[in-house]
Amino acid sequence: MNYADYLKLDQLLSIQQPESDRLGRPARDELLFIIVHQAYELWFKQILNELDVADQAFTEDHVDDADIGKVVHALDRIAVVLRVLVNQIDILETMTPLDFLEFRDLLIPASGFQSAQFRQIEVRLGLMPEARISFNGQSYKSKLRAIDQRLLSKLESQSSLADRVETWLLRTPFVVWKDWDFEDAYSRAVATMFANERHMISENPELDQEQHDRQLRNVEQSEDAFRSILQPVDGTVAAPGWRFRPQALLAALFINLYRDEPALQLPYRLLTALMDIDELLSTWRHRHALMVQRMIGRKIGTGGSSGHDYLKNSAEKHRMFGDLFALATFLIPRSALPPLPPHVQRAMRYQYTDTAS
Amino acid sequence: MNYADYLKLDQLLSIQQPESDRLGRPARDELLFIIVHQAYELWFKQILNELDVADQAFTEDHVDDADIGKVVHALDRIAVVLRVLVNQIDILETMTPLDFLEFRDLLIPASGFQSAQFRQIEVRLGLMPEARISFNGQSYKSKLRAIDQRLLSKLESQSSLADRVETWLLRTPFVVWKDWDFEDAYSRAVATMFANERHMISENPELDQEQHDRQLRNVEQSEDAFRSILQPVDGTVAAPGWRFRPQALLAALFINLYRDEPALQLPYRLLTALMDIDELLSTWRHRHALMVQRMIGRKIGTGGSSGHDYLKNSAEKHRMFGDLFALATFLIPRSALPPLPPHVQRAMRYQYTDTAS
Amino acid sequence: MNYADYLKLDQLLSIQQPESDRLGRPARDELLFIIVHQAYELWFKQILNELDVADQAFTEDHVDDADIGKVVHALDRIAVVLRVLVNQIDILETMTPLDFLEFRDLLIPASGFQSAQFRQIEVRLGLMPEARISFNGQSYKSKLRAIDQRLLSKLESQSSLADRVETWLLRTPFVVWKDWDFEDAYSRAVATMFANERHMISENPELDQEQHDRQLRNVEQSEDAFRSILQPVDGTVAAPGWRFRPQALLAALFINLYRDEPALQLPYRLLTALMDIDELLSTWRHRHALMVQRMIGRKIGTGGSSGHDYLKNSAEKHRMFGDLFALATFLIPRSALPPLPPHVQRAMRYQYTDTAS
Amino acid sequence: MNYADYLKLDQLLSIQQPESDRLGRPARDELLFIIVHQAYELWFKQILNELDVADQAFTEDHVDDADIGKVVHALDRIAVVLRVLVNQIDILETMTPLDFLEFRDLLIPASGFQSAQFRQIEVRLGLMPEARISFNGQSYKSKLRAIDQRLLSKLESQSSLADRVETWLLRTPFVVWKDWDFEDAYSRAVATMFANERHMISENPELDQEQHDRQLRNVEQSEDAFRSILQPVDGTVAAPGWRFRPQALLAALFINLYRDEPALQLPYRLLTALMDIDELLSTWRHRHALMVQRMIGRKIGTGGSSGHDYLKNSAEKHRMFGDLFALATFLIPRSALPPLPPHVQRAMRYQYTDTAS
Repeated sequence: MNYADYLKLDQLLSIQQPESDRLGRPARDELLFIIVHQAYELWFKQILNELDVADQAFTEDHVDDADIGKVVHALDRIAVVLRVLVNQIDILETMTPLDFLEFRDLLIPASGFQSAQFRQIEVRLGLMPEARISFNGQSYKSKLRAIDQRLLSKLESQSSLADRVETWLLRTPFVVWKDWDFEDAYSRAVATMFANERHMISENPELDQEQHDRQLRNVEQSEDAFRSILQPVDGTVAAPGWRFRPQALLAALFINLYRDEPALQLPYRLLTALMDIDELLSTWRHRHALMVQRMIGRKIGTGGSSGHDYLKNSAEKHRMFGDLFALATFLIPRSALPPLPPHVQRAMRYQYTDTAS
Repeated sequence: MNYADYLKLDQLLSIQQPESDRLGRPARDELLFIIVHQAYELWFKQILNELDVADQAFTEDHVDDADIGKVVHALDRIAVVLRVLVNQIDILETMTPLDFLEFRDLLIPASGFQSAQFRQIEVRLGLMPEARISFNGQSYKSKLRAIDQRLLSKLESQSSLADRVETWLLRTPFVVWKDWDFEDAYSRAVATMFANERHMISENPELDQEQHDRQLRNVEQSEDAFRSILQPVDGTVAAPGWRFRPQALLAALFINLYRDEPALQLPYRLLTALMDIDELLSTWRHRHALMVQRMIGRKIGTGGSSGHDYLKNSAEKHRMFGDLFALATFLIPRSALPPLPPHVQRAMRYQYTDTAS
Repeated sequence: MNYADYLKLDQLLSIQQPESDRLGRPARDELLFIIVHQAYELWFKQILNELDVADQAFTEDHVDDADIGKVVHALDRIAVVLRVLVNQIDILETMTPLDFLEFRDLLIPASGFQSAQFRQIEVRLGLMPEARISFNGQSYKSKLRAIDQRLLSKLESQSSLADRVETWLLRTPFVVWKDWDFEDAYSRAVATMFANERHMISENPELDQEQHDRQLRNVEQSEDAFRSILQPVDGTVAAPGWRFRPQALLAALFINLYRDEPALQLPYRLLTALMDIDELLSTWRHRHALMVQRMIGRKIGTGGSSGHDYLKNSAEKHRMFGDLFALATFLIPRSALPPLPPHVQRAMRYQYTDTAS
Repeated sequence: MNYADYLKLDQLLSIQQPESDRLGRPARDELLFIIVHQAYELWFKQILNELDVADQAFTEDHVDDADIGKVVHALDRIAVVLRVLVNQIDILETMTPLDFLEFRDLLIPASGFQSAQFRQIEVRLGLMPEARISFNGQSYKSKLRAIDQRLLSKLESQSSLADRVETWLLRTPFVVWKDWDFEDAYSRAVATMFANERHMISENPELDQEQHDRQLRNVEQSEDAFRSILQPVDGTVAAPGWRFRPQALLAALFINLYRDEPALQLPYRLLTALMDIDELLSTWRHRHALMVQRMIGRKIGTGGSSGHDYLKNSAEKHRMFGDLFALATFLIPRSALPPLPPHVQRAMRYQYTDTAS
């Protein structure tokens, strides 16, 4: 056993083959361009490997408690990797546009859009085909190799991580526990909150009629928003503007509100890790867009896209867990929060004494 | 002389006064909220101090060569500070929406929009009033204190860094040097490049009529783009979609193309530093927008803005040096670049021997 | 309520008062020097505030399970703050030695050694007085203000976070549970492992006498090491080279080995957070030492210390949770790990069904 | 041309072959272990490529001015890469000691010590064989493959970057220019400074005899230190404790002191970039040492080293450009600095007018 053999270094270090060398007009920075992309692909492979952990644990019909910690660990690792991938853009930005121009034409029509692993990551995390920004009216798969297209189509037909998380949320225990129902308790708390707000508006002598009406309309709009998840018209489908079904959102809200309970700590960390990943991917896209703008200005990309614009829009639109961010809309202050009944709280804690077990 | 007295620590550490404490319902994370904003304001003060270096060196009518290094140093420092400010968002993101909710209402209508120093930075760098995203139809200054409004109005009437840089670019030596004129030489090189492209399209037997026509239209569009800076209709005004006048863009292009010449190294680094600052500010806004989304979901901000949407759009629109990014559009490969005549090149280098001086 | 008033900006931004200005020979970078230190002190205040969370939860005689998540959150936040403080050194490094020299003499004998808050952080985390590197034979407190000295002496007489964590570890449930005793089970597994190793050495025909003896001695040394925590001579005192008592180390080992059990996830994350903090503080000291070397070369510091050397050594010696790192010495492969008996494992999981509660 | 073919993805993504898989007892984190090391090796290759830029430009007998900017760019890029490599340790730290233990034994005796590319980087930057920490009394090359040993021996016999930089410094123009000699001027300024200090000590009525004597001894020690570079006993050899010869140090000092002169800006940035690289390598070693401690505690490394201790010491001792840090010792305040005579300053600036060229 030897370091070089173990890591297959002879092979690894021989597969940087600049086109500009092959064509006899070497461009020094093409090596950098190749290496940075190869490094990205290595890390994409690692991310896919971590997603396996989540897929295996979050099956359709069961999640073992002892596995949630492993999944959180895998997702946290993906976040750490993504953080390095964001920083790695700093390296590519040391390549100037003029240096890129020396070999850019040799790459056409190859393009980062053809990274099959990156597309797998998007699909497996749960980017929905209909959410994708149109790309010259073609499928995002059209430029990939046939083998990659087949794999992506297969993945699209399977449950994504977002799907699995939704299914898991729908099964959350304690949301309904014996005679207690979180939805009822929370609905009452929200109703009380709004009633107080209406009362304060009505009793406020400083408001003129127009201010009074506007503030009341604001309250009504907020009440409408809450109906996306509380007592929805049809609880079996997601409300407009949402991905997850009301009961899944309600469970996620429950986890966020009572996260200090030991039984909810890991679920809470899991939801947070998903938001971290979503945010880091968006940040990566944003920085990627700026880097492309710096590199090619207003030209189109080697793959034929509008370059900067495509990437900029994807930073905004290609989100998977936007629902979890939007949940903040439904939080109410701790002071107004219905306390957990003792028997629910007890069920969510460990019993350490022999007699209790 | 003592560390605590020198740094005024007794004062510094006594001006974190949470509203939630004052009102008798302490919210633990309000201290974090105050400290992170105070840290931002300290760094904003430092950024403004560095902008003084640039303002003093880049006067309307003269820039001393020995000062350009100092300005590059000041701008690079701003970039390093901004990098920390981006990372600092990680700290604020450790505050959860539920923790924020405990004191959020107490802050209304105070808002980060009222940071006078941040507005000064924007104005002094060169964010133009007409480029600002409308904010409920009101001036961005309307919510600020009168003293801050006056200062900002005064700054708006003065030259920004972008203005000063444009003036400096217009004076760039060597762009025209004795009998040599960069614009002529570059125009010829560009014309040759396009003629070659047209020729290749016409002679390509594999193109059908439609492809042939489309490719020719692409070439025509590129030629049009070049006319923004080469032989413009009116060289005294900026072309549509540009901020800088054609001659300034031409000088910036010259600096980018011949940056290896010792005399152009510092100007090149200065332009790069301006792009770094622009990019970091945009990244800060992007991350800020995501953080706000995580914190308040789809609610409106404490200052009354649409929160996430406003910040998201400003990450895209509140750019100062977009022209420098767009310059990449005009680069041509080094192989097609007109070489500097020897007498121009000689003028741009040092003469080390006694006899030469 | 107004942003500027809320943050006390008028006061905050008026307490940067460079000595060089006061003396009429302004040194531009003294502002940077003041601001970077003030930013450090603001963050130190926040760190101390987070340590309060841990102190309140980890009392001498009880830790509420619902509080462990809060403490992990507070410690993780400290780590995020420390990461920014490490990056902040990048800003100070933009000050060149020559620029520092313009005002360095004015600071004597003030020094960062006098940061009372930093000393509080060290003491409260658990840096032991006897572990401190001697500083010209004087107490580290000698240069501080009397009020700060008194506070530090008081803190030294109280339990540090390390003390509290040790006490908490000593109470870890499940290490002994009904008829099961982790120490016995682990001791047997370790004994079996060593017996196997001895057997393999004895039966290996390729070893000559000298190799045979050396490998056996290695095994004996490893066995000795294990006796620091397994069946120690005196379990009531820490073994030489260790801070924590054997039973606390054993509990930490138990937590690390069976971390996938839901009941151990938060304790595991707590131990990890302590190591992160220890590592980040060490990295901060290391980078601080390099920065000082760059700034003053081989001169002595303004406070009279040997500057670089002191800081360099403290990066190595001023550790609080080295025991947790050293625990890795005692891990055995999962394949050799004694499985948890079903009744122990069951006790460490939640029971979700009504009947079980 | 296709993304996957261009980057040789089929090969790249097929050379992660965990030993644990081959032996039929898969350890999930071995993939991470392989990928992080392969990513390191890719970046090492890029660093070596950048060192080529420096080697080609900094030949023994000539450096073209137009190349210095390119070398600074290459060195700055190395620093950006190293910054990512430091951050990449965060990823490896997500692997827990227990997970590492599952495959650690399978690697013996392979070890990161066998990274031939890392050794090349050390040698080419200028780490001197005699400065290397002894490693069980064997050469650092002894565990490498024969082909790697030969390459390293060859590199050791060639000029390192440090050697080339020293040669270049020795040729620095303007240090002596016509009738002006920097060494003379600076020696006089230093002598005046020390005379003033002696005078102040002698005239200070508050000092007792012992303080008086001690302060005088301090001045004498400082004067001795200056003699390492000013009027050294033998200018052709480096003084004890230094790597560079006095004239090279003097030139580096000159560059630092008068860095605002346009002609010295790039040389100044080059020296700064070398310090950045030195510092980042040291920080990488420091973090690597902490990571190893966390991973294996007090065990020895797979390659047989003392692991943490070796790495910890190398962070301190394996420095290449320590002389440049130590130069700060010799700086004197700008107010005491001898001004450049006008004819020297003029020679160090550009002449923009036709008549001047």
